[in-house]
Amino acid sequence: MKRLLIFIAISYGLLLTACSQPLVKQDRQVRQPVKNLILMIGDGMGPQQLGLLREYARRAQSSRYLAQNGKTAFDRFAEQGLVGLSSNGPADALVVDSACSASQLASGISSNSEMIGLDQWGNPVETILEKAKQQGKATGLVSDTRITHATPAAFASHQRHRSLENAIADEMLSGNQVDVMLSGGLRHWLPQSVNTMAETRAAIARLIDEPAIELVSARRDQHNLLEQARRQGYALAFNRRQLQQAKGGKIVGLFASSAMQDALDDHHRRNPHQPSLAEMTKKALEGLEQNPNGFFLMVEGGQIDWAGHNNDAGELLHEMIRFEQAVAAVFAWAKHRQDTLVIITADHETGGFGFSYSRYRVPEAKPLPGAAFAEHLYQPNFNFADPVVLDRLYAQKKSFYQIWRQAKGERAAPDADSLLAAINANSAYKIDKLAAGRILEKEANAYYRPGHRYLKAKQFPKVDDFEEFYVYGDGVHLDLIGRALAKQQNIVWATGTHTHTPVPVIAWGPERHVRRFSTLSHHTEIGLWMMEALTSQ
Amino acid sequence: MKRLLIFIAISYGLLLTACSQPLVKQDRQVRQPVKNLILMIGDGMGPQQLGLLREYARRAQSSRYLAQNGKTAFDRFAEQGLVGLSSNGPADALVVDSACSASQLASGISSNSEMIGLDQWGNPVETILEKAKQQGKATGLVSDTRITHATPAAFASHQRHRSLENAIADEMLSGNQVDVMLSGGLRHWLPQSVNTMAETRAAIARLIDEPAIELVSARRDQHNLLEQARRQGYALAFNRRQLQQAKGGKIVGLFASSAMQDALDDHHRRNPHQPSLAEMTKKALEGLEQNPNGFFLMVEGGQIDWAGHNNDAGELLHEMIRFEQAVAAVFAWAKHRQDTLVIITADHETGGFGFSYSRYRVPEAKPLPGAAFAEHLYQPNFNFADPVVLDRLYAQKKSFYQIWRQAKGERAAPDADSLLAAINANSAYKIDKLAAGRILEKEANAYYRPGHRYLKAKQFPKVDDFEEFYVYGDGVHLDLIGRALAKQQNIVWATGTHTHTPVPVIAWGPERHVRRFSTLSHHTEIGLWMMEALTSQ
Repeated sequence: MKRLLIFIAISYGLLLTACSQPLVKQDRQVRQPVKNLILMIGDGMGPQQLGLLREYARRAQSSRYLAQNGKTAFDRFAEQGLVGLSSNGPADALVVDSACSASQLASGISSNSEMIGLDQWGNPVETILEKAKQQGKATGLVSDTRITHATPAAFASHQRHRSLENAIADEMLSGNQVDVMLSGGLRHWLPQSVNTMAETRAAIARLIDEPAIELVSARRDQHNLLEQARRQGYALAFNRRQLQQAKGGKIVGLFASSAMQDALDDHHRRNPHQPSLAEMTKKALEGLEQNPNGFFLMVEGGQIDWAGHNNDAGELLHEMIRFEQAVAAVFAWAKHRQDTLVIITADHETGGFGFSYSRYRVPEAKPLPGAAFAEHLYQPNFNFADPVVLDRLYAQKKSFYQIWRQAKGERAAPDADSLLAAINANSAYKIDKLAAGRILEKEANAYYRPGHRYLKAKQFPKVDDFEEFYVYGDGVHLDLIGRALAKQQNIVWATGTHTHTPVPVIAWGPERHVRRFSTLSHHTEIGLWMMEALTSQ
Repeated sequence: MKRLLIFIAISYGLLLTACSQPLVKQDRQVRQPVKNLILMIGDGMGPQQLGLLREYARRAQSSRYLAQNGKTAFDRFAEQGLVGLSSNGPADALVVDSACSASQLASGISSNSEMIGLDQWGNPVETILEKAKQQGKATGLVSDTRITHATPAAFASHQRHRSLENAIADEMLSGNQVDVMLSGGLRHWLPQSVNTMAETRAAIARLIDEPAIELVSARRDQHNLLEQARRQGYALAFNRRQLQQAKGGKIVGLFASSAMQDALDDHHRRNPHQPSLAEMTKKALEGLEQNPNGFFLMVEGGQIDWAGHNNDAGELLHEMIRFEQAVAAVFAWAKHRQDTLVIITADHETGGFGFSYSRYRVPEAKPLPGAAFAEHLYQPNFNFADPVVLDRLYAQKKSFYQIWRQAKGERAAPDADSLLAAINANSAYKIDKLAAGRILEKEANAYYRPGHRYLKAKQFPKVDDFEEFYVYGDGVHLDLIGRALAKQQNIVWATGTHTHTPVPVIAWGPERHVRRFSTLSHHTEIGLWMMEALTSQ
């Protein structure tokens, strides 16, 4: 009896200590690992982008979230879980690209710009996906870009540069044999001869059985990764129907030659053969949960970043909604489980996006019923942004990228008339011909570098302020569309690239693992803590 | 014995429940209130600004934080406490000003633009300071701007517009009798006759006994608030020495006619009679802790916002350091206490600030020792921002505001030569005469409004992109200095006003109160939760 009492007293004391206040984080102590880890990365999703979605969800008339009290799946995870903020810079610089950031998240080790699965010196490092595999867990990667794009790549390959997507595909399939891979990027999986030999082309076409996908290879060898995948026991899928029918725990699904469609095309079902990000996520969970040892799954909302690079707020909102639907799918799957850690974060912020107040259309004075306004009208000094902007952003019909394509048709570039027509047909905000002409202006590239992937263009679209931060050649015309609409939208953009902004972290799951994420961290720590949650004994 | 065991078993079970997983937030259940609540507001301190300080602290050679492992007081509070992210928009718009934001934090009730202590209809609402006072607690407000400026004002007064600072001073003193008020803004406390009557002036000068403070009144009546404060039993202080000597729990300290000095002037002790924000904070704590019922204290780092409005990154860094020192003072006071809740947050983000990557000075290729670079050089496509920028920002000697004053001397505005000289003497980054001339350019104000406080200027400094978001008349010249330095600093700014960016929340104290702050919230919820922590039975 006495020993029982002593035991009770000690364990009671331990519990009190664990719950003591002011609270202190558990640190590196031995923890029971989680069975499953789901990492969701909104590429380019800073606090600003998450703020956009939350404002839309709570305040727009068109918001589908109003039926659920304005709450998104991010809110649901954050309500039950905890929140943190995480810096994300590389070892040698202040601003990170997606490759380096994903490498740091995947490994917990400092990396450098544009590297895939390497430390800052250029040595391969073990990733959390590889560690999970070693433990006998299933592994999965889902993205709405290409499966070989920087973010998924950094979890399952090791390359000196993110652009080496053919080699990345080889590593993913031959090396890590990732169980579930769902995204775009078929062009890196087809033998080069598909471009030139009718016979190869016909054979591939029969295999794929989806005419909407362009058959073109970006490879420089005859390696047929689809054939190899089939030999390795993967089910293959190239459209939504095939994905639904795929059985078993090993699936390769490649639904576009390069990137999957953007969220606005997705919303309007313009490529109906492509599954949504949420559908891919659900299918991945179905496959992975078959493994009794658990799994690691990374899901990327990858085009949030692209909307940011293009300073395209309408697309940005839809990309956030698309990613939210995948988050909701994970919430539905996980909500009653006790064995799964869910981490939702971003790799960095893109665009320096914000709603902002301005001197354009300062609102008129109006009466208010309150006591302080009995003898005065209410008239703020500035235009603080009418929430109706949210509905108008939602009403945008096509992304700037697709607007540009529509405007140029078969030509190399649109003229002012066709651009004006395409913008005004697709945006709730209208511009005039002067503004359209302004979007088309070019100037000498003051930072011309022969042979450089982006800076080899001698002419660049004409940006007046902060031009050095608009780097992607003719793509910068899209940012100029954003500038043309900005004052009407009460929207500002700081850059065409990324910012250092610390990004949100939402951690949900067993308390013993979740708590440490609610702090001011760096992404290498997030990587380390995820690895410890999955592998600690 | 059996009853003891049952008791132990039950309470053990309760503890287990409290620590159960997956964790669920306590919600509105009865809680023991905290004795003290300290709210620290970094005005304009979005995740971006906090990120700047954290990068500086960990990575700059000049960082005083390296001695403590690169950790700031924000990190210390966040390590022991929890972190959240909070949206902050007003009831009728997407972007908030400081008055509305502070009103929402102070009351937990939706407010509208530029209102002080009112709900969105214009009715006065009870603030947390007033609730604390009702409970017999001591109350304090500390700011490095003016005590009547929007943020402190909203905790202790109720006015239809933030500009009514004379009425705000009256309310603070006569109505709420805030126990400790330490800041600038003496001009709203002196009778109008100080401007015209030598006798009044002489009497006030004797009372103040600090020649460095300009004696000027902004009032339109003969109300002498200093005299009134003395009658009410306040100790008065107008410089650092008087502040140190002030005794008792009631102190009014007014250390400047209008705003206190900026953080760069403070750093270089250019107005040595002024106490620092940290010194004011310590003194406030000394005074307030004398009340056995506890206290409510709000401390504002108010010029973070001003540096953001001016797009002045060097000053911004120093403002963040100044605020951090106040946070460190609170940490030192609170760290061993169990009865105090500390909430650190911002009212909104200012400037859309970011480090960003560019096409300016793309780094040269270099070898790396790692395996992946055995046959290749490391050369990122872009300039991802050398961390040396952090030291160069720190080395800035004066704020843009003071640089401009230095350049113009006795004139209405500087010329290109004097501006060039002043910038290059005070910034580690140099500009040429062409750039100096560009900063001085003006154009017609396309948004001219006669009678408007800011938009009545027919000419505005010439901003090319996003000009609508640069609203403060000639002050926009300072933003143009920021643009001139941007490419060298790898820094971008989206706006001269505020953004909707959700802001950091760091909550530290008893677990039962802290937990709910670690979520995606709105500032009205932060206000409500603080009030519940202080007043729940």
